[in-house]
Amino acid sequence: MTRSSLFALALVLAAPAAAQTVPPQVAQLRDSALHDDYAWDITEGLTTEIGQRLAGTEAEARARDWAVGKLKAMGFSNVRVEMFDMPTWTRGAESADILSPFPQKLVVAALGNSASTPPEGITGEVVGFDTLADLQAASDEAVRGKIVFVSHAMPRTQDGSGYGYFGGPRRQGPGIASKKGAIAIVIRSIGTDHHRNPHTGVMNFPDGVKPIPAGALTLPDAEQLQRILKRGKPVMMRLTLVSQTGHGQSGNVIAEIPGRDPRLSPILVGGHLDSWDQGTGAIDDAAGVAIATAAAKRIMDAGRPLRTIRIVWFGAEEFGLFGGQDYLKKHGTEPHYALAESDFGAGRVWRVNSKLGKEREAEAKMLQSALAPLGIVPGDLDKADGSDIEPLLTAGMPGVGLSQDGTYYFDVHHTPDDTLDKIDPEALRQNVAAWTAMLAVLSGGIEPEPKQPKRR
Amino acid sequence: MTRSSLFALALVLAAPAAAQTVPPQVAQLRDSALHDDYAWDITEGLTTEIGQRLAGTEAEARARDWAVGKLKAMGFSNVRVEMFDMPTWTRGAESADILSPFPQKLVVAALGNSASTPPEGITGEVVGFDTLADLQAASDEAVRGKIVFVSHAMPRTQDGSGYGYFGGPRRQGPGIASKKGAIAIVIRSIGTDHHRNPHTGVMNFPDGVKPIPAGALTLPDAEQLQRILKRGKPVMMRLTLVSQTGHGQSGNVIAEIPGRDPRLSPILVGGHLDSWDQGTGAIDDAAGVAIATAAAKRIMDAGRPLRTIRIVWFGAEEFGLFGGQDYLKKHGTEPHYALAESDFGAGRVWRVNSKLGKEREAEAKMLQSALAPLGIVPGDLDKADGSDIEPLLTAGMPGVGLSQDGTYYFDVHHTPDDTLDKIDPEALRQNVAAWTAMLAVLSGGIEPEPKQPKRR
Repeated sequence: MTRSSLFALALVLAAPAAAQTVPPQVAQLRDSALHDDYAWDITEGLTTEIGQRLAGTEAEARARDWAVGKLKAMGFSNVRVEMFDMPTWTRGAESADILSPFPQKLVVAALGNSASTPPEGITGEVVGFDTLADLQAASDEAVRGKIVFVSHAMPRTQDGSGYGYFGGPRRQGPGIASKKGAIAIVIRSIGTDHHRNPHTGVMNFPDGVKPIPAGALTLPDAEQLQRILKRGKPVMMRLTLVSQTGHGQSGNVIAEIPGRDPRLSPILVGGHLDSWDQGTGAIDDAAGVAIATAAAKRIMDAGRPLRTIRIVWFGAEEFGLFGGQDYLKKHGTEPHYALAESDFGAGRVWRVNSKLGKEREAEAKMLQSALAPLGIVPGDLDKADGSDIEPLLTAGMPGVGLSQDGTYYFDVHHTPDDTLDKIDPEALRQNVAAWTAMLAVLSGGIEPEPKQPKRR
Repeated sequence: MTRSSLFALALVLAAPAAAQTVPPQVAQLRDSALHDDYAWDITEGLTTEIGQRLAGTEAEARARDWAVGKLKAMGFSNVRVEMFDMPTWTRGAESADILSPFPQKLVVAALGNSASTPPEGITGEVVGFDTLADLQAASDEAVRGKIVFVSHAMPRTQDGSGYGYFGGPRRQGPGIASKKGAIAIVIRSIGTDHHRNPHTGVMNFPDGVKPIPAGALTLPDAEQLQRILKRGKPVMMRLTLVSQTGHGQSGNVIAEIPGRDPRLSPILVGGHLDSWDQGTGAIDDAAGVAIATAAAKRIMDAGRPLRTIRIVWFGAEEFGLFGGQDYLKKHGTEPHYALAESDFGAGRVWRVNSKLGKEREAEAKMLQSALAPLGIVPGDLDKADGSDIEPLLTAGMPGVGLSQDGTYYFDVHHTPDDTLDKIDPEALRQNVAAWTAMLAVLSGGIEPEPKQPKRR
């Protein structure tokens, strides 16, 4: 027996016990959701009738009104908005011109919370770094008075794990560059595509660090700048990144299916309503709110669950999880039976993680068995995630993580290319089927509504 | 025997006679060109050090200087520029805002020769048509005073043949809309991708027809506008397409490898130097001039051909084939042994057409045999093409058409996305190998340069 076949045997032996029998109601709800149209209807409607909905702006307010109308029309109960205040940032004119040695225009977008340049821009010599570590290691003298450029080598991954490490140039780069005296920074977009669409995203300057203009070049433009820098001549750039800051309001839109037993803690499912401002936020995150809401609607169509299902369309996720923080403040002491958020596009669910606790392991295993026919791999029993629900999960509340395939997510993420055509309706339906099955398993059984006597 | 196998047999029986033996010199030159670096070097250099080079502008002038320097440095003879005058058109600010019923920004680019809007744009109701035929059939009343939108259903094709029929909305749409009294027109970009990068391209208003602003929406934006129109409410758009017209100069850059027998007519190979203004013109047409020039250079490296090889980097192709017309005017009465132009991207050559005449059929068959090992299918013996050389071909001069795979060409064609990263270096080398083999077959044999006595 070879070492590798020994290893394969060990894997088989370590596999979970035989799958559990899935209750017919769960299987039936799951399989019929493979024909779902609710999620497409929500995604198409929100992206078409509202389009971009940047946090704290009037566009997000219109999106909230749209959401309330939609959730009421779908028949959910207790539809309401919980408002909160937030600082706002909005984009103005943007350009990046190489003045010498090879005059040409590059395509750039400001990062969220970038400082503004004057309308006529600022001009400086570009100093390039292949990685964030190279910038960190640079002397202040090498950077002072210059426009910093930072590249990276973010790979595609199914689980999106490259975004953490390789997102460093966006998250930490501007602060590091400013501390070393740079007048601005441009980064290679945190993305995996090769289109002339820049990837924006939020960043924050550490306390006491002076904000500087910070932008993302598209990947083709970043590679162009690297080629220009390699010629070894001084590279002068005029960078215009106009933006405005202010104060505004955002809000979480909440709806419910009241459970048969109101004493039981609710299951929270959701996504975020706000989007970045250059696309229509189809994969980030119209699809997410659509998947969670469609699954709840399918449960509601089948009858009444034992537990309350609460749907939350969080506001202002992109600008710092303000919606999640507001929910934590207002509901963080209420028990929740499970939390789940869909916010990683519209790719097929390929894995189920959960963190329901040792005493609910049978339920977690049932969830795995119910999802396996959809091609979903059982994952960890001590993990769950979701940006807005992270504080609640960290506080120890139970959760489920239905991992979407993110292989192509960062081709489109935070770019003008985040539009409806990027969504595969079949993959969207598989998501709804997975979420429906999860709700069917966790919500304690669905019973037909008692027939109401007709009023005359 | 089934009908389909009978059909297959008929195809085999109709196949050309047994392939000819390819001279060792031709095979050796072809195969060594599969390791070519000249074409990449030219493509990378022109797109990096010049970038966009719109016809008649100072950027195209810089590109001509770059071309002259490059062709001289590569060792070609008789490097010269033949200048000509031309009308110019340059792009200004552009935007397309839906004002109602669903306020949002669409991404648009003006078509070449579009009329200019005022800086503040124009506002009108949008009237949509699924096809050019629908616009043609519309009454003047339906169009007058409105902004026309025309869609289409252009499919991918390997030979690019969809561009003719489905390019109608761009070429004829503006004229038809203007005649019916439209105040402007936006079309679905003539492309096959789904990115937020509009496809520009030239159009001309017929004599006596008033020029109106004419733009191309990206394909995702065109589909968004269709969805918005389908809601059935009046759609108001503010369209800003600022542009400037004027007069300028362009030129053809010409270089040669003088043949051993100067009495023999030359072989002309080339592409076009100018590009559209939003990308760096990598596939259109830096790759084309690079392929033709690299092949000639490989011949020159091997020695001296019997016939002169003339390389032409045409100017101002995109704005109406001005470079080809100027070459026709200055050289149209000179005999040419063969004409070939590379202007369909950087995809692999998949087919060879030629039009060398009945008396040169053996030469045409030899060309097929020499190219077959590169995976190139023998095509027609009465066809050749090339935009700038078309007038000469039409006048009856001999030509060769090395058809490139255009399956993905119209994803990128005339968009900001036409950048170096779209080129596959291996496919580029296969092109150079094909062009080198063609020149080796047609140029009458290459002999080593006689050794020059060294001067002291």
